[in-house]
Formats: sequence, structure tokens, C-alpha cells
Amino acid sequence: MDAYELITTRRSTRRYLSRPVDPTSLSLVIDAGRYAPSGGNNQSTHLIVIQNHMVLQELAEMVKIEFSKMEVSDGMYTSLASAIRASKGEKYVFHYDAPVLIVTANRIGYGNNIADCACVLENMMIMANALNLGSCWINQLRWLNDNPLILDYMHHLGMLDEEKVYGALAIGYPDTADGMPVRTPLERKGNIVTMI
Amino acid sequence: MDAYELITTRRSTRRYLSRPVDPTSLSLVIDAGRYAPSGGNNQSTHLIVIQNHMVLQELAEMVKIEFSKMEVSDGMYTSLASAIRASKGEKYVFHYDAPVLIVTANRIGYGNNIADCACVLENMMIMANALNLGSCWINQLRWLNDNPLILDYMHHLGMLDEEKVYGALAIGYPDTADGMPVRTPLERKGNIVTMI
Repeated sequence: MDAYELITTRRSTRRYLSRPVDPTSLSLVIDAGRYAPSGGNNQSTHLIVIQNHMVLQELAEMVKIEFSKMEVSDGMYTSLASAIRASKGEKYVFHYDAPVLIVTANRIGYGNNIADCACVLENMMIMANALNLGSCWINQLRWLNDNPLILDYMHHLGMLDEEKVYGALAIGYPDTADGMPVRTPLERKGNIVTMI
Repeated sequence: MDAYELITTRRSTRRYLSRPVDPTSLSLVIDAGRYAPSGGNNQSTHLIVIQNHMVLQELAEMVKIEFSKMEVSDGMYTSLASAIRASKGEKYVFHYDAPVLIVTANRIGYGNNIADCACVLENMMIMANALNLGSCWINQLRWLNDNPLILDYMHHLGMLDEEKVYGALAIGYPDTADGMPVRTPLERKGNIVTMI
């Protein structure tokens, strides 16, 4: 694929095979993320790459429980409201049971923390697409990044005291009919352009 | 270039020729940005593409004046402090005199505004690299996004009342010895990885 195709065919994949991601591919994806630009070249994004199935299951269970304690309120961000509603159902797995979850943490109070993490995540999504791996941006751990239980768990996984989660990415082999990532053309409804 | 090379050779270019960017290339860059993922597929990033030289000069002059009124304080974000210091000198052009500045605005109070803009910007940087165009993330208008004069000016350019600037990108043909974007290997000092 040329650069334009590579970038514009990237969509979210939400069904994954349980098969682990080949280490060489995973390492290319992680590296692509590490080469993202950062404010003042700070490079302070911390990538916590979780492949351990028990850890992923434990985290998924905690996220479900913590969301299920929350209530949807007026004006709440739609995706967060959907997560809270879904968490009260029988099955809710925030990371779509992907075999890999890469959590991006960054320094609390650093002005570029969210933007830097987003660039790391975007690079990894494009690299995943190039390798025919599916990926999906995961916001749940960011929405819970003030939750004491989730914070404790992330610290236990190696997140530093001065860090918080500002995004995450599910990655894996797509569980689709043709085994390819979702690449249906994005319906253009926004991201409008004003030319001056 | 393959995907990995394309992503990992992207660096900031800070010297540009004044020559306008070829419209086809510019349109590919903008489109790459518009295909970025967004929270809940909101696509609410507003790309304000400024090529008008007088507008760019006016904006650069305003940014210099507004920064020069500010003072550096303890614990201030290093890049912002540098901008304030530089603005008090004779020459300070926040967008490196690039012939194109793409400002990304988004809805105030929308939880994914910074992250969505960052993904749009990152896509455009990668696409620019593929086209041998230089680019550089520009944060100055975001740092000034509460400044009444800059806000007024951005509204005059078409930014909506419910929007604010969350990032920008300078783009142009590189003013380098070989005419190519800066691609010196990034010195790896951070973006550490924890494997679980």
C-alpha cells in the first residue's frame, strides 16, 4: 500500500483472534509508536504493553466492575455513557478481548501529555494496518484514570506515581471473514476544512 | 519508503522555502488528516488551512506581540518558556515562515478534542513525509487559545464560537541542502516500554 492508502484505510477493528501477535510484528508496532513526535522532544510517553492473558482478564473484570458503579449523566461524553451502560450487562470486555493492549501513560501536569500519547497511538495504528493487524483506540482506562483501584493496578503493572493513563490501543489478528483488518471506507461526515 | 521507514523517519523541519505547496500534494496531506480516527467517530476536528501570505504575516506578528507581553515563570512548560523568551527578541516567527499553516480546532469541552486533533496532525505529518514535504508541529496558537485577540482573529478566519485551537502544523518544501525533509535519526532517550 502507498502512504495515502495506508493512512486512509485505517479503521477500528473490534473482533480479534486469541492468537498472540508475532513478536517481530509487535516490536515494529511498538517502535513506530516510540518514534512519534513529542512536545519539546520530551519522549515521556510510557508504553505498557500487556500480553499476559491473566492480567488482561483481571483488568477487564475490574474495568467492568468500576464502570458498573457509575451512572450516566446529562451531557456526558457519548462513548463514556455507552461504556457505563454496557458494563451493567452480562458481558462487557473493554478491550474487545484483543491479545495485546498497549497502554500509553504520561506525566501528570505535562502540557503535551494527551497529544504525545495520541501521536504514539496513531503511529502504532498505521503500522498495525501495514502489517494487516487490527487495532482499536481504547479510552476506558483514561476515563478511569482517577479511579483508585485502577490506579493501584496500573502502578502494580509498572506505571510510575507521576504518570497517568492518557490512551490505549487494542491490537491483534482480526477475527473477520477474510482475516484482514476492517478497512471499509470511512463515511465522511465531519473534519471540515476551511481554506484561507 | 515502506511503512516503518515512512513513520520512523518523520522529524521536524524548521526551514522552508517560500514556494507555495503544490495543490495536489496539499490536498493529499489534508485528506490524510481528515481520515484520522476520532472519539466515537465524531470527526469534529476543524482544519483551517492558511496559505494567504498576508494572513500568515499578520498572525505571526500578533503571536509575537502577545507572547512578548507574557513572562516566564517557574515550572512553566519548557517550550512555552522558550517561545516567550524568543518573542522578546527582534525576529520571532512562530510558524518558521512556512507557506502553509494548518490549524486544528475542535469543540471546547469535548473530551477527545486534543487527542483527535493530534491524530489529524500525526497523519498529516506522515503523509507530508511521504511527499518529501517538511512539517513541524506548532503549539503556539494552542498556548494562546484563551487570548482574546488571537481568539478574535481565529473567529475572523472561520473558527466557530464553540471551538478552540488544539494544535497546528507548518508545512512546506524544506530549505535544506538536499531539498529533503529533515530525517536524521531520532535520538532515543525516552518513550520507555514495559512488557507485561
